Amino acid sequence: MNTGEEKMVFQKIGVIHTPYMEDSHVPYQPIDVQTEGQNRFCADVDEKYTDALYRLDTFRYVYLVYHVDRLRRPAELTVQPPWAGGVRVGVFASRAPARPNPIGLSVVRLLSIEGCRIFTSPVDVFDKTPLLDIKPYIQDLDAKRDANFGWVDELSDRDHLMLHIKGVPHAD
Amino acid sequence: MNTGEEKMVFQKIGVIHTPYMEDSHVPYQPIDVQTEGQNRFCADVDEKYTDALYRLDTFRYVYLVYHVDRLRRPAELTVQPPWAGGVRVGVFASRAPARPNPIGLSVVRLLSIEGCRIFTSPVDVFDKTPLLDIKPYIQDLDAKRDANFGWVDELSDRDHLMLHIKGVPHAD
Repeated sequence: MNTGEEKMVFQKIGVIHTPYMEDSHVPYQPIDVQTEGQNRFCADVDEKYTDALYRLDTFRYVYLVYHVDRLRRPAELTVQPPWAGGVRVGVFASRAPARPNPIGLSVVRLLSIEGCRIFTSPVDVFDKTPLLDIKPYIQDLDAKRDANFGWVDELSDRDHLMLHIKGVPHAD
Repeated sequence: MNTGEEKMVFQKIGVIHTPYMEDSHVPYQPIDVQTEGQNRFCADVDEKYTDALYRLDTFRYVYLVYHVDRLRRPAELTVQPPWAGGVRVGVFASRAPARPNPIGLSVVRLLSIEGCRIFTSPVDVFDKTPLLDIKPYIQDLDAKRDANFGWVDELSDRDHLMLHIKGVPHAD
């Protein structure tokens, strides 16, 4: 029972491995393509959690919850996403990594599990990002067909901008 | 830079209000109906984050990230969801609230925002659950049409069980 506590302490349950080193470019929310990047993205869960992964391999998609631990900027209340042509929105209306609590969330395609290593589709975090949780993404619960694009929809070039958000390579 | 730290400290950015008091029944992942429960579920964000909510109201769905702070059981590596007829799965293959890091995640329908109060569709947490983050749920990024049901699909009565998971009232 931690009722009333203002601060919460969480622990690393593993690390996410990506090809993105500290000084490299990290794309925004890379898409879940399997053609590229296969076996270059994985989540290594600590061995003591081996049993906690039982049956996870039955899911096509999973959520990775992680600690955004290498921020270049402090969190600000409003942000201007670099791809959004100068539009300013509240940080809670954005997926900016620098947030009051630097908790990252990505939906990834689960490709395979070998022991405690979970191979996934691309995820836009630096190599060795601390993993906090894995949750199954369940069709009826999480796939909202009537979800919208929010303020992104108001931008003049939404489809092109979504390529940036999703990190899809394209001629600019 | 917190690289290499094993523990992370996060802070409450607000609280989630629900009709679920400590001794009451909390349904599993209530569905996003607006017919019932309207104005009974809301997230109150601390006033200092007012600007961080700017343009959030343009989104139909949002993620609530919260601290599951009133657990009745310690986290175990495997769980038997009460509605799943005795099936045992790893905790990371489940949405069980008792997890190595008690971080909760719900996709909710955003109904309206009044000041720092965000009215939402039902969310299956106790009243006054500490809020950690709000993220926009963006159509192309988060709505995976080809997501599956994982091991839930193998149960003999999936559609009926999904009613339990989603907290939909029904004749049992």
